Amino acid sequence: MKKKNIKLIIQYDGARYRGWQRLGDSDNTIQGKIEAVLSRMTGEKIDLIGSGRTDAGAHAYNQVANFKTASPMSLPEILDYCYRYLPEDIVVKTIELADDRFHARYNAKSKTYLYRILNAPRHDVFERKLCWHVPDPLDVNLMRKAADYFIGRHDFQSFTTLKSKKNSMEREINSIEIIRDGIMLDLYFKADGFLYNMIRIIAGTLVEVGSGKIEPGAIQEILSTRVRSNAGITAPPQGLFLYEVDY
Amino acid sequence: MKKKNIKLIIQYDGARYRGWQRLGDSDNTIQGKIEAVLSRMTGEKIDLIGSGRTDAGAHAYNQVANFKTASPMSLPEILDYCYRYLPEDIVVKTIELADDRFHARYNAKSKTYLYRILNAPRHDVFERKLCWHVPDPLDVNLMRKAADYFIGRHDFQSFTTLKSKKNSMEREINSIEIIRDGIMLDLYFKADGFLYNMIRIIAGTLVEVGSGKIEPGAIQEILSTRVRSNAGITAPPQGLFLYEVDY
Repeated sequence: MKKKNIKLIIQYDGARYRGWQRLGDSDNTIQGKIEAVLSRMTGEKIDLIGSGRTDAGAHAYNQVANFKTASPMSLPEILDYCYRYLPEDIVVKTIELADDRFHARYNAKSKTYLYRILNAPRHDVFERKLCWHVPDPLDVNLMRKAADYFIGRHDFQSFTTLKSKKNSMEREINSIEIIRDGIMLDLYFKADGFLYNMIRIIAGTLVEVGSGKIEPGAIQEILSTRVRSNAGITAPPQGLFLYEVDY
Repeated sequence: MKKKNIKLIIQYDGARYRGWQRLGDSDNTIQGKIEAVLSRMTGEKIDLIGSGRTDAGAHAYNQVANFKTASPMSLPEILDYCYRYLPEDIVVKTIELADDRFHARYNAKSKTYLYRILNAPRHDVFERKLCWHVPDPLDVNLMRKAADYFIGRHDFQSFTTLKSKKNSMEREINSIEIIRDGIMLDLYFKADGFLYNMIRIIAGTLVEVGSGKIEPGAIQEILSTRVRSNAGITAPPQGLFLYEVDY
């Protein structure tokens, strides 16, 4: 029987999970939780392909994933089943039939991540699990100047904890937008792809620029040295959201 | 030694607590938690007066409270101590010296509460603990028509679970504002005071109006009968926020 290729858009609060990617038999991952529900629903062993991994503790507004199934269930039935049996912190928002060749990871053209910073002397009880609390006042203009140095194609070896001799560390960042809304700072990063921990290290470095510890102009040199320890700290995962995937 | 009268503005996420008001020896209340920290700090037995109680599971953006102390600590020192020793879901936002006669409850002229409703087929993983999820589409115009009947001075016996023959059930509602922002519905209630469960029963009734179960015009009659069972359901506590207290 010909299998259908189904595309999902998924929202999740990653606080309780070890990240998107299934880890062996542990089901304490987003992918593992959704695959378990889909497998139970269809009676098949479902392999769910996400647009990419997200870190332990990081969130998603619009993760994109696809899976193939021979199940005769309708799309609304699948959506309802997911809503009913997934835990409260994972919601499949939309579901659609995709082209047979659609692959959530290989076909992703660009991704946008949001990193949220609460910049105030004290934290906010309602935001505390969904942002990084930075008490020191941040100079947004300095951060924007520094952000400009990241735009374009660069080797990001200084901004990842991934160690690999084989794979290219080159990525192209299309834009970094920094929006201040009261005490919240929203950092949007759009790129063709990101290395492991790359956004969190860039966000941590931009915060060190904003608090005057690193000069905006130093970014160019940090990039060129290709040494992780030259960049800033790694921002914590609870401020990181996979915001959008473009195909 | 003459005691200082200190006024606090407090933000809290009430999810873990049995409400504002201290209950005997149980310290699982907001008032109990703050009194314990202030008493330890000053070495005195601190009595913290809040502007009013909030329900178990309800929240506050700006609860106002005051206490008297002979402590020589400065205001910033007290603020820092509270920030350090209170649990993460209770934050003292501001602190100031008040007039000796200031009393957070007796002097409150009016209070504004916010009730948040998420009106969409599925819940939102990031909002789920801070709103009431209502999947049926709500007609905001009907809700606004119904809300108008509450404005002014009325006997609110139909809208409280408080049973009392002694105390007046009359309250004056100054305004009810209903703001739709995408899938969020924010209901702001301003009054000289509220009876026990009053906002949650009004919010529940307005939702039943919005989904077509109750006619807006029925509100007048429900008020006049003074019977709780004629009004709508009690909205859950996690959508309720004490928003502002005016003096």
